[in-house]
Amino acid sequence: MKRTAFFVSDSTGITAETLGRSLLTQFDDIEVKTVSVPFVAQPELARELVERVAQVAAEDGARPIVFSTLTDQGIYEIVAASEALVLDLFSVFIRPLEIEFNLGSTHASGRSHGMANRASYEVRMEAVSFALQHDDGASTRHYNDADLIMVGVSRSGKTPTCVYLAMQFGLRAANYPMTEDDISRPGLPHAVAPYTDKLFGLSIDPERLRQVRGERQPNSRYASLSQCRKEVKECEALLRREGVPLLDTTNLSVEEIASRILLKTGIERRLR
Amino acid sequence: MKRTAFFVSDSTGITAETLGRSLLTQFDDIEVKTVSVPFVAQPELARELVERVAQVAAEDGARPIVFSTLTDQGIYEIVAASEALVLDLFSVFIRPLEIEFNLGSTHASGRSHGMANRASYEVRMEAVSFALQHDDGASTRHYNDADLIMVGVSRSGKTPTCVYLAMQFGLRAANYPMTEDDISRPGLPHAVAPYTDKLFGLSIDPERLRQVRGERQPNSRYASLSQCRKEVKECEALLRREGVPLLDTTNLSVEEIASRILLKTGIERRLR
Repeated sequence: MKRTAFFVSDSTGITAETLGRSLLTQFDDIEVKTVSVPFVAQPELARELVERVAQVAAEDGARPIVFSTLTDQGIYEIVAASEALVLDLFSVFIRPLEIEFNLGSTHASGRSHGMANRASYEVRMEAVSFALQHDDGASTRHYNDADLIMVGVSRSGKTPTCVYLAMQFGLRAANYPMTEDDISRPGLPHAVAPYTDKLFGLSIDPERLRQVRGERQPNSRYASLSQCRKEVKECEALLRREGVPLLDTTNLSVEEIASRILLKTGIERRLR
Repeated sequence: MKRTAFFVSDSTGITAETLGRSLLTQFDDIEVKTVSVPFVAQPELARELVERVAQVAAEDGARPIVFSTLTDQGIYEIVAASEALVLDLFSVFIRPLEIEFNLGSTHASGRSHGMANRASYEVRMEAVSFALQHDDGASTRHYNDADLIMVGVSRSGKTPTCVYLAMQFGLRAANYPMTEDDISRPGLPHAVAPYTDKLFGLSIDPERLRQVRGERQPNSRYASLSQCRKEVKECEALLRREGVPLLDTTNLSVEEIASRILLKTGIERRLR
């Protein structure tokens, strides 16, 4: 069975897409082609979409699904009259909130992923810039300004986690790779030792590490299982000894790693 | 009026948070404190949440809002019996989809932001790594593998856009800064000239550029309005002459920039 789902919005469509994809993951045994249709802010664009829906319905032999976050009532009604099953985030949830708050909603578009709040947007962008400047131990000068300093062996997941923490939560996360030298010495490396309260350790299963490193440098000592085992074991021991919290990233996505770090450390996100 | 909203999930809570924040942006004149409660996967954690909700309700003098994506029926029922207004994404939308697909849903948790699909996760992580390696012209060796090469003057928004395109869509985006030398010469810089079909230009209002640069290097020639005006004007002229698409990023968030680039170029995201 083949189906098409449209994510439709008068702005970026990120909310419709996040919602729609989450819902679709709940269904196995169905192949759904997804199409993002952002910036549907004029009636003509809504009418074009209705035509496209009809065409896809004919091709698929089944009606498409539309996940909508359209805020404009007139445009929404054009889309609602299409052949699709239209699941509208706003009509379902906005009304109970209006009643609860005893307030009308604004029906303004582009509020959630636009520039409605420039101050918090700039916090995020600064954090992304911080993550890049302090990636892989590149600079250790501004560790004072870091919310968090991730430590771990090479390829344990530090970099994408730092970038995600910045983009999603506005947190300034640096990362410092624990080299062979670092883990063979007693005590924490000089660069991070003054910041024990900001340190967070990432670890990974040596077999998985071997695989990840092997994709970069096949048949190298760096990617050998014995080397991966040794580094992981020594690095974990060092971090435990120094009281640095540790998370095994082997089966976790960056989203899961980031959520767990916040939960474990109690660090407050800088956005809202 | 003060209110508290909880984003509750048995996994990362990203979907509940995205949905909840989008809905809350529709209400002005109300101050909402938000609290993320991820990984509510055991009944005890659900009961703790119910207690917390009661406490917050007493403090606020108004019932909290719970945005939920709980997939386990038993855990959901514990939370649904709390004092909060519970808005549940799953109970509202899953049922119509089950009818539409004539299929039961899996009620599995952690599907949307976890490791359910390792292949597409790795595409994203590779793309993040690509963006960092090819940031700010750092390396131009693998431009062949890029989906997109962003060009523009320093601080026009290239870096965060590349990182976002990688994280969200799995696209490999490099970025190349157009220096004074580059824009004073006729033709595109040698490093990017062979890849005209991959180039995308970002521009920015000179006044805004002056402000952004001034935060980095106050009172510098680099941040002077005359310098910003000159660079923006010459860079725009060069890119127009060379037929490179251009987007003004002055009032756009990275999410909006990324969505518009995809819409304008027709580049397909690499995820799903």
